[in-house]
Formats: sequence, structure tokens, C-alpha cells
Amino acid sequence: MKYSPLIQELVRALTALPGVGPKSAQRMTLQLLERDRDGGRRLAAALKAAMDNVKHCVRCRNFTEETLCPVCADRSRDDALLCVVETPADVIAIEQAGTFRGRYFVLMGRLSPLDGLGPDEIGIPQLVARVGEGVQEVIVATNPTVEGEATAHYIAGALASSGTTISRIAHGVPMGGELEFVDSGTLAHAFAGRRPV
Amino acid sequence: MKYSPLIQELVRALTALPGVGPKSAQRMTLQLLERDRDGGRRLAAALKAAMDNVKHCVRCRNFTEETLCPVCADRSRDDALLCVVETPADVIAIEQAGTFRGRYFVLMGRLSPLDGLGPDEIGIPQLVARVGEGVQEVIVATNPTVEGEATAHYIAGALASSGTTISRIAHGVPMGGELEFVDSGTLAHAFAGRRPV
Repeated sequence: MKYSPLIQELVRALTALPGVGPKSAQRMTLQLLERDRDGGRRLAAALKAAMDNVKHCVRCRNFTEETLCPVCADRSRDDALLCVVETPADVIAIEQAGTFRGRYFVLMGRLSPLDGLGPDEIGIPQLVARVGEGVQEVIVATNPTVEGEATAHYIAGALASSGTTISRIAHGVPMGGELEFVDSGTLAHAFAGRRPV
Repeated sequence: MKYSPLIQELVRALTALPGVGPKSAQRMTLQLLERDRDGGRRLAAALKAAMDNVKHCVRCRNFTEETLCPVCADRSRDDALLCVVETPADVIAIEQAGTFRGRYFVLMGRLSPLDGLGPDEIGIPQLVARVGEGVQEVIVATNPTVEGEATAHYIAGALASSGTTISRIAHGVPMGGELEFVDSGTLAHAFAGRRPV
């Protein structure tokens, strides 16, 4: 089918979004053209502004367009607690849980030598310097994957001489989960991490 | 969670896309920021260009940024055959099938009095004028829904005095479909529309 060039270009550009194939891109294009041109224009402006202006927080490496991200700029939070996570999405998930009131450090990845991600790329020197500024406990909340665990071990090693308490979030049976559907690795963790009631 | 304002605005703007909720919008935002800022910028430019410049073909009402859409501008197509469809997506579907070499007329909707869509809104006067310019057969390919059938009937009535042959695309069991899974309405159509072999 010969679309008009502008429509063709928009369909192709929409497939840059994760989870959007040619068919959804076509549906999105026609929907915006037919029913929501203002929404399309707003999206264009928001995209351009974010792509051009969002950079990393100088303190925690999370995304922000300011020098400090909203969490780092919030004076009411606890400077003595630092939670280390892999990605900005993890920060959002933890903030939605709502119980953690300390600061974050975002690795923007995990140790992965095959992808060229070493300690410098995930900001370990910056993390060590940050911990030296009065942090009393570092909570390592990398994902419980092979690479996430390796990253957690590496961080524990790098901070061993700092005298700071280093903890790892608990892994076990998720709340609302049923034992019979939980995988054996998680169950093994749940037993190893058992606590007196 | 307090996102930075630009990120918050981008997440909200992305939900204007059909099938995109807050969670997917967040994933899209972080993916573009982390891995594909150029793709994001290209998408912004393509969106703006399409929203601002795409209008309707003066001849068939399909979307295009030119005066005539590519199909209407193509001199090799058969002016005597006119296929009436509801939406631009239908044109794309028929073009992908690849057997129709005539022209199109896109209603940009269907008769739907409750939504304020009457004959004028779906371009019936323009269709009648167009058929008067030497069209020999009008193929009505509106959807086999209640509104699509009503629209097809209305078009047949409006063109009855034009002397043009008016046909409706066949409805029946889809190719590759299995009889036991086909609904009874479709089966009834398939029997009523049977042809000698």
C-alpha cells in the first residue's frame, strides 16, 4: 500500500516505541489523525522537550531535567539511608510502595562485562564517594537475577572498608502468592531467610 | 511518585495513543530516554509534521498531505471501478490484498444518527457527484455490522437513479476458517450467497 509519505514516516517512527509493531503503529496513526490531533501535537512537544532536556541527577543518576531530581531535592528525606537500584523504573516501584523515606542511587544498569558495562559505567566510584558522605546504611535492591546478584556482591565488596552497614532486600514468597505456584529457587530463599515470629 | 515534570508530561501524553495505559507509557518513556533518544526525536518530528499537514484527498477523502492521495494520483488505475469503504484502514487492508485496481471513496465513518453522522458528514453528496463522472461499477465495502449494512443500503438508494451497477462484497466463511467455529449469521450469509461451481 502506498501511504502518503508523512503517514508512512509516522507509522515507521512509532515502531521505535517498545511493544509497538507495524500494525499497532498504523492504528495509532489513524486514531490520532482521525480523532485526536491535539493529543498528537501535545505528544510531539512532550517528546521533543524530554529527549532534549532530560539528563541525569548529579547526585543519584536518576533521570531529571534539573540538576537534582525531586527525591534528591526533597529536604525531608533521610540522608543516612541509601537504596541502590538498577533503573529509574525501580525507583518508581519503590516510591509507589511508599515505605522507604531515604535516598536512592541509580546504577542505570547492572554489571555485564559482555555488554561492556563495568564498575565505572554503573557509577561505582560515585557510589563509594557518596557513601563516604555520612550514609549509615546501604540497602542493595538490585534485581534477584544472576547479573543483579553479581552486582550486589560487587557493591558489598567495594563498600566493605567504608564501615557502613550494607543490607540486601529480602527475597521470598510474594505477598498474596501461593506456595504451590512459587518456583523452587524462591522457596529455597524463603526458607534460608526465615525469621523468628 | 514524583517524576520530573517533563517525564510526567511525556508519560501522560503517551496515553493519548490507543492501547497505551500509564504503565506502558512509563516503560516507553524510560526506554526512549535510556536507549533511543534519536528515535524519540524522530517520532516527535514525524508526529508534528503529520498532525499539522495531513488533510483529506479532495477526490476520495482519504488521508494525505497532498491535494490528491497516492491512489487517486496513480494514472494506471481503473476509473470505472469505485470501491466505497468506511475508513483509511480499510483502504490499506484492500490494497494489501492486492487484487483491486480501481479507485476508492472513503466515507470516514458510517451512518450513525446517534453520533451526529448523517449523509452529509460521510460525504454522500460528494460520492453521488463522483459516480456521475463515468464510474461504471460501485463496490460497497462497508463493514458487515448493523451500521455498515445501513450505510450500504443508503448508498444503494442514493445511487439507484445513476444507472451505475452497484455491488456489495461477498460475506461468508473466511478462507482458512473452519465451519464449526463460524458464527451462525456468517453461515446463513454463506448459504444465501452460494454460487454454482
